[in-house]
Amino acid sequence: QGTRDHPPAHAALRDRLLAAVVACFKRHGAAAIDTPVLELRETLTGKYGEDAKLIYELQDQGGELLALRYDLTVPFARYLAMNKITNMKRYHVAKVYRRDNPATTRGRYREFYQCDFDIAGQFDPMIPDAECLKIVHEILSDLQLGDFLIKVNDRRILNGVFAVCGIPESKFITTCSTVDKLDKMPWEEVRSEMVGEKGLSPEAADHIGEYVQLHGGLDLIERLLQDPKLSQNKLAKEGLGDMKLLFEYLTLFGITGQISFDLSLARGLDYYTGVIFEAVLLQQENDHVEEPVSVGSVAGGGRYDGLVGMFDPKGRKVPCVGVSIGIERIFSILEQRVNASGEKVRTTETQVLVATPHKHLLAVRLKLISELWDAGIKAEMLYKKDPKLLKQLQYCEDMGIPLAAIVGEQELTDGVVKLRDVATREEVKMPFYTRFQKYFQNLEITESSG
Amino acid sequence: QGTRDHPPAHAALRDRLLAAVVACFKRHGAAAIDTPVLELRETLTGKYGEDAKLIYELQDQGGELLALRYDLTVPFARYLAMNKITNMKRYHVAKVYRRDNPATTRGRYREFYQCDFDIAGQFDPMIPDAECLKIVHEILSDLQLGDFLIKVNDRRILNGVFAVCGIPESKFITTCSTVDKLDKMPWEEVRSEMVGEKGLSPEAADHIGEYVQLHGGLDLIERLLQDPKLSQNKLAKEGLGDMKLLFEYLTLFGITGQISFDLSLARGLDYYTGVIFEAVLLQQENDHVEEPVSVGSVAGGGRYDGLVGMFDPKGRKVPCVGVSIGIERIFSILEQRVNASGEKVRTTETQVLVATPHKHLLAVRLKLISELWDAGIKAEMLYKKDPKLLKQLQYCEDMGIPLAAIVGEQELTDGVVKLRDVATREEVKMPFYTRFQKYFQNLEITESSG
Repeated sequence: QGTRDHPPAHAALRDRLLAAVVACFKRHGAAAIDTPVLELRETLTGKYGEDAKLIYELQDQGGELLALRYDLTVPFARYLAMNKITNMKRYHVAKVYRRDNPATTRGRYREFYQCDFDIAGQFDPMIPDAECLKIVHEILSDLQLGDFLIKVNDRRILNGVFAVCGIPESKFITTCSTVDKLDKMPWEEVRSEMVGEKGLSPEAADHIGEYVQLHGGLDLIERLLQDPKLSQNKLAKEGLGDMKLLFEYLTLFGITGQISFDLSLARGLDYYTGVIFEAVLLQQENDHVEEPVSVGSVAGGGRYDGLVGMFDPKGRKVPCVGVSIGIERIFSILEQRVNASGEKVRTTETQVLVATPHKHLLAVRLKLISELWDAGIKAEMLYKKDPKLLKQLQYCEDMGIPLAAIVGEQELTDGVVKLRDVATREEVKMPFYTRFQKYFQNLEITESSG
Repeated sequence: QGTRDHPPAHAALRDRLLAAVVACFKRHGAAAIDTPVLELRETLTGKYGEDAKLIYELQDQGGELLALRYDLTVPFARYLAMNKITNMKRYHVAKVYRRDNPATTRGRYREFYQCDFDIAGQFDPMIPDAECLKIVHEILSDLQLGDFLIKVNDRRILNGVFAVCGIPESKFITTCSTVDKLDKMPWEEVRSEMVGEKGLSPEAADHIGEYVQLHGGLDLIERLLQDPKLSQNKLAKEGLGDMKLLFEYLTLFGITGQISFDLSLARGLDYYTGVIFEAVLLQQENDHVEEPVSVGSVAGGGRYDGLVGMFDPKGRKVPCVGVSIGIERIFSILEQRVNASGEKVRTTETQVLVATPHKHLLAVRLKLISELWDAGIKAEMLYKKDPKLLKQLQYCEDMGIPLAAIVGEQELTDGVVKLRDVATREEVKMPFYTRFQKYFQNLEITESSG
């Protein structure tokens, strides 16, 4: 339940997807690291708030208390602190585990891949942050998923907004998680949760509402920097100044067309301390998919400057910013598209099938295929002594193998291989490899299998 | 304990290793599948004999009883039976888990990669089996690990030997596991275990000893086919006939020089039913490594025709043969070699560092690097507003980045980029990309970060 086998068509599609993501991470100079699936339970506790109940714990079979990793960010922070690393750009593509109620139709499983890219280190403001957004933009563009929007905000701006609206600091986090629901429910409902459940005054809620419904670009940042109240708040001013810088860098990257400064973006996790962002796909108007998958966000991340310090005995901080690509959701979309188009995903990469047109030629096939493998060519043959030619060509069609290399008595005599294009049925004759030809000149072709 | 983080140098070396193995599997036309790390406990029980105590079990947190997978073969068999697949060539590269006492110096961990290639289906004898041996030969040759030997035997031959030596069938498996120790202890000790612990008669043990100390090639197979006793045993005769066929196919593949028919090879696992094999590295005489790692076998496998049937409600059998590459042991050897040679493993693939020779050029670097990324070039820059040129070149040397693309005021005016070979210090000037140049013709270069 909530885990699944990935049959070849899945695995091939996902491998292509992961390869595109990893190519982008490498293009940005990241090194790979790998951490164990098993972490000490204590490493994970106290990092995920109330989601901690979703952690898979292992039986105490007379050893340490272990759990399955819940994400890749906490293990990365633990790794940096344990190894006293203060400076690193890494990617990590691996599975994580959550005892969630799987919403499998939406691409949510209990075991799923995360693809993370993070930059750790003390640097000049917003340069690594801008690169993370560039990466999201590159990947979503590369994968041709259609129009998308990357929402950006900053926890400091949100906290500044809460402060100037008279919210006590103790209620920042809980107010934050209510704001976070603005992408799923209208402001009226969010407001009534603030007043009813969270105990804010109606005036404070209305005041927050004026801010968190805003979104825009550089113009909005400039406007808020002039806002009489917000400009007086130290956190908000810092956040807005950095947001301006970020937009200038994103302008240089030429990607502001897909970026929106959106004050309603709050992100669930507690550990964010600065910039936060989330990418969503925009529903295509001329989308012919019959039942569009509701996919939510396809990438997200932000700055978390305090997490590494939680694992350091002396609490030394290592500032970090990172992005996580929601590969499973993207996979759901691509899979649905492939299914809708009826396109057949090739599950193997075989270039040529070695075939024979009549009996007693197994030895020839074995010798030829061995030469091809040794030359680095992806080749297959049927595991039958005397397969029919039709069966062999049928196999090519079923598996999408583009070529068949056919050798019969005539070809052996002539010292050639007939190379057949399976789709067009065109055939060309090619000479044997010298070594191959020599071998068969001296070989009496008998069926050794009797 | 027994799990580990893989820092970038490890991860990069291992990625290369895995890529070589996967390339070979794909060359042989295998499709990838993926199965969950979590399996139902009942799937795993009764498959590994007394090793079952090494299975990691998850806490019952109010759901199914789960365990971490112990290998990739049992999940593959479960997958075939569940999906009623009777014909498949697949590979699977993934981590497995064992609560073993880790011998970390020998490359043994509790969490480790397995790389499996298996062929399932009813085919003509020994054709898929020969391909598995070809794969082992290709991978060990590709990785340039030095001389190696692939030992081959057949469970039917072993059982035939036991039968003609008068061992009751109930003692076949336990005798088998004693024979398996012949690669680690001399015959005298194995014999005394047979007589002492396993209760065989001294005559029977001596008789077994005459057989299991034999090894050779086609000549030995022919001799045993003429053996008055063995040739009377149905199982042994079948096994020897197939072994002969296998050697004929391996001759066509040109790999018999590294293959030994070795009657002492028994393999631990119960589920093998036919051909079994194991590859070992041969100690190099002129090996300059100071402390050679004792690595044991680096690949192994065999035929298991009964395993899939254990998962099928009607017991329908799907014959299978497969090979598992001992990637962690190979990794240990390569790692030790790299350490001994002092060679530095590059952890990233960055082709060029975008650098500026003086202040106030952050915008230029951001623009140029963005153009490079968009052109698919692997590029980095330092995350500083005004890094010193020396620091930038030092970073190239530290990270093994071969090129630096340098743009200063002069280059901007001339519309060129200076491309510097970091090792030779040679520099060539190249024109900007048109788009890049146009951009900066209209841009007043100021430091937006203030």
